[in-house]
Amino acid sequence: MLPKTVPTAALLIIGNEILSGQTQDQNAHFLAQRLAVQGISLREYRTIPDDEEAIIEALNALRQKYTYVFTTGGIGPTHDDITVRAVARAFNRKIERNPKVEAAFISVYPDINSKDDPRLRMADMPEGAALIANSISTAPGFQVENVFVLAGVPDIMQGMFNNLVPQLQKGPLLFTRIVFCKIFESRIAIKLESIQNAYPDVEIGSYPSWKQEEEQGVKLVFKGFNAGEVEKAFEELIKYAHESAISTRTL
Amino acid sequence: MLPKTVPTAALLIIGNEILSGQTQDQNAHFLAQRLAVQGISLREYRTIPDDEEAIIEALNALRQKYTYVFTTGGIGPTHDDITVRAVARAFNRKIERNPKVEAAFISVYPDINSKDDPRLRMADMPEGAALIANSISTAPGFQVENVFVLAGVPDIMQGMFNNLVPQLQKGPLLFTRIVFCKIFESRIAIKLESIQNAYPDVEIGSYPSWKQEEEQGVKLVFKGFNAGEVEKAFEELIKYAHESAISTRTL
Repeated sequence: MLPKTVPTAALLIIGNEILSGQTQDQNAHFLAQRLAVQGISLREYRTIPDDEEAIIEALNALRQKYTYVFTTGGIGPTHDDITVRAVARAFNRKIERNPKVEAAFISVYPDINSKDDPRLRMADMPEGAALIANSISTAPGFQVENVFVLAGVPDIMQGMFNNLVPQLQKGPLLFTRIVFCKIFESRIAIKLESIQNAYPDVEIGSYPSWKQEEEQGVKLVFKGFNAGEVEKAFEELIKYAHESAISTRTL
Repeated sequence: MLPKTVPTAALLIIGNEILSGQTQDQNAHFLAQRLAVQGISLREYRTIPDDEEAIIEALNALRQKYTYVFTTGGIGPTHDDITVRAVARAFNRKIERNPKVEAAFISVYPDINSKDDPRLRMADMPEGAALIANSISTAPGFQVENVFVLAGVPDIMQGMFNNLVPQLQKGPLLFTRIVFCKIFESRIAIKLESIQNAYPDVEIGSYPSWKQEEEQGVKLVFKGFNAGEVEKAFEELIKYAHESAISTRTL
């Protein structure tokens, strides 16, 4: 059970190129790792197409369920960048041109000589949105209530995420112990289950390694907010492994 | 608009280890690519924890919306493998031990001498499930109605998917043209938009490349079921690029 003090999160990865298999998403894994370090529990992520109705539906489902929602993708200057429109509709807000962002664009690109310049589309945001600084290019991300709208390009997204981290609510860190056992996981399943039953607040994961070129065995991961409980559950497993002459390697 | 003859799909990636950032999922990208080759349109994928209620909720939402649902993860012999139970509950079916799979396990592992052997848990399936052959290890995947339940270990999942491909309904293939333009995408946004408006059945995607070590510019992807339309839209862009002295490289 997740303690009530743990903030939760969902990701909404927006992009036809990922669903078509053309591009492998990198953003979810980065965000999963960084959220874990903040003590924020990532509960799900969804990858959906550049489709306005699909974005609105997912956004409204997720933002009511979790402390934070992070979106990636679809905030550029081209016709297929529809995330801003979808976010505005999901929150029932108008879109307005942000004067601060507009001024930044005009100062960086002095050749902008019309309000219709496509670069200025990236200054259009849902009204009342708070900016998220972009350390690489000019267009910022933005925040509306508990939704953080980030770029899809990994380098830019990562910079934006780093800039918004200070304002996130932090949670308690999970204490983790990991051991690799050189044995099929089925051979340790009954013992693991009895440890799991004895320590219900410790999350015990069992991940067999099956790749031909890798050592075969099982990686066991013990996690929990109570370090003492995790340690006790883990020690019970290690003791059993030694008694059973199972080769182990803590990771 | 997707023609009605195009089968659709969703993925349900099940695994705490992915949400915690411990493991980077490889299965979604593999399946996205393989489904595209079959003419099956992947419409979304969700990554969720090893949580029975979360699996049931997602499964019931997705299986009613799409032609096919593919799940990965959670079908091993340990306590944290709960996908079978969740699938059975989602379809309101009992779990039964499959005699064919049980016999296969006993023949491969002659030391199995009890019905309680954890390896035999992998012979437990929702009643009426059809088996999906496993080319690497003994435990098969299975199918219930339009839901295909696959292993989480990538090598095993891939073998299972290859074995089930012949029974999938195939759709028309998307015709694709790709060009890299050495220019910021905002500089081509207006032309792209006018081409998109002229060819509404062609999906035009614009993907800027921003990585420091890579050539900066934009990858433009034209896709559609009507090859002639895709070709015409693409040629219009190429013509514009040449007139505007934009350096291009078709990919």
